[in-house]
Amino acid sequence: MTSEFDLIRRHFTRPTRHTDLAGGDDAALWRTTPGHQLVVSVDMLVEGRHFFANTDPTDLGWKSLAVNVSDIAAMGATPRWALLALALPDADADWLAAFADGFYACADAFGVDLVGGDTTRGPRNLSVTMCGEVPTGHAIRRDGARPGDDLWVSGQPGRAALALWHLRDALTLDPGHRDACLAALHRPQPRAALGVALRGVASAMLDVSDGLLGDLGHILDASAVGAQILATQLPEAALIAACGDTTRARQACLSGGDDYELLFTAPAAQRDAIARLSTELALPLHRIGALTPPADGLTLHAADGSTAPLARRGFDHFSA
Amino acid sequence: MTSEFDLIRRHFTRPTRHTDLAGGDDAALWRTTPGHQLVVSVDMLVEGRHFFANTDPTDLGWKSLAVNVSDIAAMGATPRWALLALALPDADADWLAAFADGFYACADAFGVDLVGGDTTRGPRNLSVTMCGEVPTGHAIRRDGARPGDDLWVSGQPGRAALALWHLRDALTLDPGHRDACLAALHRPQPRAALGVALRGVASAMLDVSDGLLGDLGHILDASAVGAQILATQLPEAALIAACGDTTRARQACLSGGDDYELLFTAPAAQRDAIARLSTELALPLHRIGALTPPADGLTLHAADGSTAPLARRGFDHFSA
Repeated sequence: MTSEFDLIRRHFTRPTRHTDLAGGDDAALWRTTPGHQLVVSVDMLVEGRHFFANTDPTDLGWKSLAVNVSDIAAMGATPRWALLALALPDADADWLAAFADGFYACADAFGVDLVGGDTTRGPRNLSVTMCGEVPTGHAIRRDGARPGDDLWVSGQPGRAALALWHLRDALTLDPGHRDACLAALHRPQPRAALGVALRGVASAMLDVSDGLLGDLGHILDASAVGAQILATQLPEAALIAACGDTTRARQACLSGGDDYELLFTAPAAQRDAIARLSTELALPLHRIGALTPPADGLTLHAADGSTAPLARRGFDHFSA
Repeated sequence: MTSEFDLIRRHFTRPTRHTDLAGGDDAALWRTTPGHQLVVSVDMLVEGRHFFANTDPTDLGWKSLAVNVSDIAAMGATPRWALLALALPDADADWLAAFADGFYACADAFGVDLVGGDTTRGPRNLSVTMCGEVPTGHAIRRDGARPGDDLWVSGQPGRAALALWHLRDALTLDPGHRDACLAALHRPQPRAALGVALRGVASAMLDVSDGLLGDLGHILDASAVGAQILATQLPEAALIAACGDTTRARQACLSGGDDYELLFTAPAAQRDAIARLSTELALPLHRIGALTPPADGLTLHAADGSTAPLARRGFDHFSA
């Protein structure tokens, strides 16, 4: 059987862009940009929980890096270096080749160097560590939101959830929207350019991985604020068109995870700047609500003028 | 059931020493020391492969960090920041508390901040990312060894293998040596101070995780050298005393993994400096051979004056 070292060398050795030593030693080496902070996160994806056993390995390679690029983007930072730890049930060269293709496609798209990793036999598990940089003191954290700030979300949250329900036969997607929804689930596009552009604009930010409401709850907790969401401003039209069901569309938009859109807050004075950014990046940015004093909690302001409390429904990997 | 976020917060939130933001956001933030390179590695430990299902969780917590501290030490770098990604079959608070105790005991012993992580349900899998720093250009790599350099190993390689064989009933350890062997397996002591002290002294270095010969092979490949090992210089006496079997002792010393001793090369002119280091650190350092031209391969020079070729027997996670 091919040895571990051969496998790694063959599939995960490609030229790097900004790394002094990648692979082949006890650790990777690189120099950081003076005046910057390191920004580092890790995500672990488990077969049967985060992805299906039959997921296309190229898609999986893309997504395993993309979700980590998204974490760095959500700090307003630039993604730069990644490490990949893989547990695999067998040394399947075809699977590894396809996975590596997807992984490197994402790495190339976002200027990321794969600098190291580990490979072992075991139940399939992908753990990616992502390192980026941000000018010192300019990271966009979760604790900077203030009452009166606007609440924004990028792109189209909810499509990945519709795709998941489609794959589970819980609904049938309209053929005209199906591919876009499946792409959102399998090939999420982390909002890397937007994240960096929002430095000095957004007051708080995170990426929506577990659902808009659940993740918004983290900003509310960290910043000690409440939020009112404006139902009429939610980007639901495309979701309704895709699934033909307003209730499901609302559920996907507010509680569906896995789209990796950015959810951020900003003072009202930044509305023009954000509109310009949306144009420059050709990316819709939706002002879906506003922050309130913490005692107001989380509410939904409906088209008929009524206001009702909203539960925070996020996806929790130990209570779901 | 306790939520994922509560679990993480409860067990893995402690004050940090040199980190700007740890936990509670999309990524951790820290500043690096000017004039230094980042040194980063990741290790994935899988239940049933790298540890037994019934391994004491406190020991496992210690070891999961210690093996990563060892990788950083093997570059001549100072360990500083760690991230922990955990897949667990259930949210067992007692197990997590014990694991965290061991993990933090190691973190405190080596001045490491736990700065972030991920927790999910799944077959038990521990993935630790370790970041350290080294003055730029002073990392000790695998490719710096030259013919004529001495070959050194720290401490007592082989005890962890004896402990493993003891636990598998393949041999019975002498009661007077048993605890030391079990400690080597369950609570390995990464040679962090030695790694840093060898900057400017050693020409190449790595830590012995898969067995002395197998890991030495990486230095031989990277540096394009051969090596002659002197049988009479191998630190086998304590191993023979522990297991009462010279063959097993030799096998443990040369092919046993998991002790995390440092294997390094240095010009003969450094012998006095290395002897002083051994005294200062109260750590035996054994000169077990010398590097040769690559064509000479890997040989064992026996007490009777004969020389025989040695196979590189390392532990390979996909061919073992």
